Amino acid sequence: MDVGVLYSGGKDSTLAALTLEPFASVTLLCCTFGITDDYEHALDAGERAGFRTRRVDLDPEVAHAARDQLVADGFPSNGIQTVHEHALETVAAFEFDAIADGTRRDDRVPTVPRSLAQSIEDRHDVAHLAPLAGIGRRAIDAMADQSLLVETGSSSSIPSGDYEAELRTLLTEREVNEIFPPHTQSRVMGRRR
Amino acid sequence: MDVGVLYSGGKDSTLAALTLEPFASVTLLCCTFGITDDYEHALDAGERAGFRTRRVDLDPEVAHAARDQLVADGFPSNGIQTVHEHALETVAAFEFDAIADGTRRDDRVPTVPRSLAQSIEDRHDVAHLAPLAGIGRRAIDAMADQSLLVETGSSSSIPSGDYEAELRTLLTEREVNEIFPPHTQSRVMGRRR
Repeated sequence: MDVGVLYSGGKDSTLAALTLEPFASVTLLCCTFGITDDYEHALDAGERAGFRTRRVDLDPEVAHAARDQLVADGFPSNGIQTVHEHALETVAAFEFDAIADGTRRDDRVPTVPRSLAQSIEDRHDVAHLAPLAGIGRRAIDAMADQSLLVETGSSSSIPSGDYEAELRTLLTEREVNEIFPPHTQSRVMGRRR
Repeated sequence: MDVGVLYSGGKDSTLAALTLEPFASVTLLCCTFGITDDYEHALDAGERAGFRTRRVDLDPEVAHAARDQLVADGFPSNGIQTVHEHALETVAAFEFDAIADGTRRDDRVPTVPRSLAQSIEDRHDVAHLAPLAGIGRRAIDAMADQSLLVETGSSSSIPSGDYEAELRTLLTEREVNEIFPPHTQSRVMGRRR
């Protein structure tokens, strides 16, 4: 089974890839709207963890629509969800047997409800896998501690290849501070051997 | 992380254990109400797959309550759910850091909604893991084909250590045929190496 994993370089998407590795040939999919080179942080983390990686070009119009949504809402959830669904739809059309992501049980956003997963599966003849969907934060932290070398810190200091990195550049500093207040970010530096 | 996995000897609970194996010390928990020796089929399958196994004694009163519920309903879902929740509560009180089960994204029963998982976690200071909760049937079959030797067949011919095996013995043949019509059952015979 060839699986493409939507990949940010953070702990969750790396752990999702690790859980699938014994059962599948895994490729990490590092998405970019072409606005910045932040996807290279994801490529770098994925390679440090020993996975095959691939750049995926998303539609910049979706980034601009998400930006407008972020500004109108004043909070990130709808804009981030829009981008994640676009990324899923984009890679679902690739040649993989399955696509996966690092969405967790306790995530507020992005989420992939069962109805969305089944809709993607039916329309694209591909499986959707969310290996962390039944696992809470504490256990994910323990699993990551066991298997990964992770750097954590403030979102302003840890480089990331997630959607937020590019979307921030479309916002004024004041909008960034309102919509994406500083939060903890993780970056995978390699595997524990 | 020490994880106890509720285990029937079938494909799903074995796959749940396999996904956790790289991150945790796994013990398969083979439950019995003490009504039959069917839990030995689960012990046997778990040992063939190379895991540590342990017998868990459930409360026979719960089996009798579930039986009454099955007969009153004429269908299995509420009775099976009652038993699964009792099994989860039982093993949550053990010494594990986490308890797990093989519930899948597309399962109708048993299910562990996020509210139940978090309730167990809060009351017992243990994590609940459902590694297959974000994975559909087709992908689970592919992952199992990749990693396990599985015998499949009619539920009347494949020995099983699941809850149904013991509950059937509390029902008349007519009730069994109404509540548990023949369905496909899987039994793990070992790992692919």
